[in-house]
Amino acid sequence: MPDSSDSKREYFLGIDGGGSKCKAIIVDANKQILGTGLSGPANPLHGFEQAIHSIQDSAELALKEANLTGIELTDLVAGVGLAGVNLPALFEQISNWQHPFKKMFLATDLLIACLGAHQGKDGAVMITGTGSCGFSYIDGHPFIVGAHGFPHGDKGSGAWFGLQAAKQVLLSLDGLIAPSIMNERLLTLLNVTDGLAVVEVIAGKPAAFYAKMANLVFDAAEDGDQLAKSIVAEGAEYINGVARQLWSKKPPRMSLIGGLTPRLKPWLSKDIQDKLAEPLSTPEMGAVLFAQQQFTLL
Amino acid sequence: MPDSSDSKREYFLGIDGGGSKCKAIIVDANKQILGTGLSGPANPLHGFEQAIHSIQDSAELALKEANLTGIELTDLVAGVGLAGVNLPALFEQISNWQHPFKKMFLATDLLIACLGAHQGKDGAVMITGTGSCGFSYIDGHPFIVGAHGFPHGDKGSGAWFGLQAAKQVLLSLDGLIAPSIMNERLLTLLNVTDGLAVVEVIAGKPAAFYAKMANLVFDAAEDGDQLAKSIVAEGAEYINGVARQLWSKKPPRMSLIGGLTPRLKPWLSKDIQDKLAEPLSTPEMGAVLFAQQQFTLL
Repeated sequence: MPDSSDSKREYFLGIDGGGSKCKAIIVDANKQILGTGLSGPANPLHGFEQAIHSIQDSAELALKEANLTGIELTDLVAGVGLAGVNLPALFEQISNWQHPFKKMFLATDLLIACLGAHQGKDGAVMITGTGSCGFSYIDGHPFIVGAHGFPHGDKGSGAWFGLQAAKQVLLSLDGLIAPSIMNERLLTLLNVTDGLAVVEVIAGKPAAFYAKMANLVFDAAEDGDQLAKSIVAEGAEYINGVARQLWSKKPPRMSLIGGLTPRLKPWLSKDIQDKLAEPLSTPEMGAVLFAQQQFTLL
Repeated sequence: MPDSSDSKREYFLGIDGGGSKCKAIIVDANKQILGTGLSGPANPLHGFEQAIHSIQDSAELALKEANLTGIELTDLVAGVGLAGVNLPALFEQISNWQHPFKKMFLATDLLIACLGAHQGKDGAVMITGTGSCGFSYIDGHPFIVGAHGFPHGDKGSGAWFGLQAAKQVLLSLDGLIAPSIMNERLLTLLNVTDGLAVVEVIAGKPAAFYAKMANLVFDAAEDGDQLAKSIVAEGAEYINGVARQLWSKKPPRMSLIGGLTPRLKPWLSKDIQDKLAEPLSTPEMGAVLFAQQQFTLL
């Protein structure tokens, strides 16, 4: 068991690995950030080899930036938060990885985001980026709402908003519903001139592609477009529901995080907005906090 | 130009190629079916090589069954109807194929379905199988409604109904909406016990997978489940809208075809049901009719 003086001499690596990128930070025992690294996709659901490659890659970049004399990956205590490892088979596969670190503590991307937002303390987060979900962590008990993926879930996420835009514009171009200002804007965004070309462009595209169309819906809603407003209202009402369910668990704090936050937050119910607290730090710092908590338990 | 006596001695091949299978028939000039063949996927959007392989494969099987002395693929006048070739680039690619037939006439799967349903005459069809769309062909003018694909379009299709079931069951298992009888039935169908396992099973699955869940929605609706009834009502209302739009073009006949027809038809508006006529023959026979029409025009 490392004693506290050991722990104070450690360097910690925090990893936040998602479907499109992997972020790494290296901090000292006082949580001072010494280096950062950014690499590619790290969700093992979309490829185990790619995920471990991205983790190692981002860690090496952070280590290089930290420029620490004589410190290598094998000296780092790693907290690794990954999308996908809520699935038990993937959690086990990553756990069994012959990683290059001194120690590795594995958690879901949700847990590290929550720990980061609340500086390692209990709380709840709602994440709305390409995907969406709710998560709380209270007295050691994780609780998840959503996180189902695209296209069957992730309501209120960037991909969901973009998908609604595409669906409604296609219905409108077919003459089945009234036109909205989203029609011209979507055609412009995709650089096409008709519905057939829209279909050619979007066929088979992943969630990240649809998420790029989300801003268009919010812009149109803010310009008063009724159809866009109804889409935003439906997405926001889902997130309101997630928030209420998380709140029923009595978290000390609750934050809304992820790339869609500035667009979505103003559309949430006033009572939900009033409950939201600013995140105190990042998911990758949450990964560090997780590693420090686990390391001192050893 | 072949004269009519030539045409009467020809053998015709009819191909109906879709995303999951390719059907072939060989008929004589009197449209007597001499042989049939069935092979794999033939939508060039999902692979050009696979598509031409399936077309040739099904044709060879049909020719073998026809057991005609001295007749080979090079003797057949082929009508080829394919999904995907509504996209101009794919139409051109297939047109440029060095096919093994005497002649090849290429059309969309929609046109041959419509020609088949109305025995080569003008009319309209709505197709609801894995996907959905509407099509009319009047005075040589094709008109398409829908056919946008999954998950952004194809409302009222098998894949769409299955996706709605998955979405609603996941929301319910998360406690965000009231349970319905679809919950237990979906878990049973997928052979899992909770929402996390549902997500594991359906993640990344194609339209054909979702379409297998469509019957579950109709069964639950017919058993009186309110949520299932609202899903069926929404899908049926979309198809009603497609029907009304097609009907505004004044087609002499209109048919509903595709695997979902027996489930969906009873839920359509009475006035739409009253407008529907039984299809007179199959899409592959429509491909033959198309080839015969085009061949006599040469």
